[in-house]
Amino acid sequence: MNIHAAVLAGGSGTRFWPAGTLDVPKQMLPLTGGEPLICETVARLRGLVTPERTFVVTGARYADRVRTLLPQLPRDNVLGEPRPRNTAAACALAAHRALRDDADAVMVVLPSDHVIAPDDELRAQLLTACERANAARTLVTLGLTPRFAATGYGWIETGAAAAPGAGGEVRAVTRFTEKPDRETAEAFLAGGGHLWNLGLFAWRADVLLEEIARHQPGVAAPLAAAAPALGTADEPAALAAAFDACTSISIDHGVLEHSTRIECLPCGFEWDDLGAFPALLRHLPTDADGNAAVGPLLALDARGCVAFSEDGDMTALLGVSDLIVVHANGVTLVAPLTRAEDVRRLVAELAARGLERFR
Amino acid sequence: MNIHAAVLAGGSGTRFWPAGTLDVPKQMLPLTGGEPLICETVARLRGLVTPERTFVVTGARYADRVRTLLPQLPRDNVLGEPRPRNTAAACALAAHRALRDDADAVMVVLPSDHVIAPDDELRAQLLTACERANAARTLVTLGLTPRFAATGYGWIETGAAAAPGAGGEVRAVTRFTEKPDRETAEAFLAGGGHLWNLGLFAWRADVLLEEIARHQPGVAAPLAAAAPALGTADEPAALAAAFDACTSISIDHGVLEHSTRIECLPCGFEWDDLGAFPALLRHLPTDADGNAAVGPLLALDARGCVAFSEDGDMTALLGVSDLIVVHANGVTLVAPLTRAEDVRRLVAELAARGLERFR
Repeated sequence: MNIHAAVLAGGSGTRFWPAGTLDVPKQMLPLTGGEPLICETVARLRGLVTPERTFVVTGARYADRVRTLLPQLPRDNVLGEPRPRNTAAACALAAHRALRDDADAVMVVLPSDHVIAPDDELRAQLLTACERANAARTLVTLGLTPRFAATGYGWIETGAAAAPGAGGEVRAVTRFTEKPDRETAEAFLAGGGHLWNLGLFAWRADVLLEEIARHQPGVAAPLAAAAPALGTADEPAALAAAFDACTSISIDHGVLEHSTRIECLPCGFEWDDLGAFPALLRHLPTDADGNAAVGPLLALDARGCVAFSEDGDMTALLGVSDLIVVHANGVTLVAPLTRAEDVRRLVAELAARGLERFR
Repeated sequence: MNIHAAVLAGGSGTRFWPAGTLDVPKQMLPLTGGEPLICETVARLRGLVTPERTFVVTGARYADRVRTLLPQLPRDNVLGEPRPRNTAAACALAAHRALRDDADAVMVVLPSDHVIAPDDELRAQLLTACERANAARTLVTLGLTPRFAATGYGWIETGAAAAPGAGGEVRAVTRFTEKPDRETAEAFLAGGGHLWNLGLFAWRADVLLEEIARHQPGVAAPLAAAAPALGTADEPAALAAAFDACTSISIDHGVLEHSTRIECLPCGFEWDDLGAFPALLRHLPTDADGNAAVGPLLALDARGCVAFSEDGDMTALLGVSDLIVVHANGVTLVAPLTRAEDVRRLVAELAARGLERFR
């Protein structure tokens, strides 16, 4: 069994602006103080997936930057989407690409901008999921033991053990619920039968494409038409046509929620989707006053702040508390940690103020 | 009477760090949102002093930058001090330089980093001071009607009208008091006989040099020895020797406090020495929420902040109040307006933290 990986790096969110911009999205930022998140994601697979079998699906505008960040990957393994078409198309594209080299390709799918630890536990769970997906020809989603009644995530309702005697504890999936209301989320948490959907999957590439064809022909057909051109000089034109025609839908909503071949592997590793700047306080080292920084920090009478600077710049904080202080890409941002979710409102204002060059 | 000007630009303070640094001190910053302060200072003299008769005394390390900022001045008019020796030496140097071209030179002396308005009132007062200084061969200091019981400035006690019937209201000076304590300052303010010393002076160059020779021979002798070399290839070596040997003392403390030829012209124009960042709120345009900025500003639920950015960068403020937010020279600084005076403490910490490259 050869395990391939599809690292999904299509995001271009606004919650880390101005560190994250249209040109350098979140997954390319060193938000835990070390390497860019996408590099850490790929590094986490070491020993499980070779660079030759690791694919990154990203926006065409980011492809060259990804190739620079991940020089160990063959150039062709970075697949640039001509336009965003959500994760069903991205998963289909990666599956076709893997099948070009390996008709029995088994593939793990990972978001590029999350933090998971420890690495070896993740790899062990992915291996278990791959073995099950390969043997049973199912779509296996990793489900995390929930920590709180999250209304912003997807939840997976699990049923009976799917594979008595198989490695791990793979379970049947009875239902997906995306972003439940507060009451529902609390019931899920209390009931104990639900897990968080992390966007971490394992499947045989051919099985995934069968299921996409069954449930999302508007994704399957254009991608299948483009597949023969992958890795040839015709690839850009073929992908342009495919993504023009392709339905835009997530793999969860478009396929997994409808498939009868879906299973779940419960997991317990540390996981964080780094939703916004305050999340950095959980991952960066902090000083004695609870300040965390990417880049040099000089703090005097300052407490609980998150600072981000780039290119060797430094942050100096004097007598302030619980602030986000960022300078990146020509913008200095200052906001209370409690207003982190409103950073997107600033971003939305840029165009109206003639400042879209800072987007 | 030909009026010359000596603009004193030797400062390298820390209160505007990181906008002001060792390489770009306060007087070179556009702190009122327009031109660098030194350019505004020279522009304020238009119609009173020609560029050919305008001299700038600055640190040798700043001389080329000053020449770039003030291209209308002859290169030789920017005098670079090999080392800081306070204002007595700077005034002597400018006087010698002016006398090279004009044995009857009358000179006004101005700090390079203050704001004065309106320009025409300043010029009228300087002209009055020059006429008196030329006619009576005195040292005339401009004294400002005090606004509050300042403990950080010098105060001038004035006596009888010095020149009944002369232009303006030139008065005798009975005493200088530098940085009085609170009680003394309040008595000065209440008494009505005291004015603020702004560092604005007028004198004949030859008279100034006579008084320096009388009261500060340790300044007069080295500068007199260097004078013949000014404007020749020997100037750098001559100045190096002169400034090595020269006493370091202010013109106020070293000469004016001792001279019997000192007079004062009371003035009432608007004046601000821009002591620290909060002063910018008095001079920059503010938005509807009282925020003031050098550089583009995007503010949402932010009030009473001072922002400074450089090189086309922008500042974004969300939900914060009464903060100083600066990004310049590779440093982002955030502090409450009320802690502006403590910025120097941050600067003092830089070396200890191995961050002196940001000084």
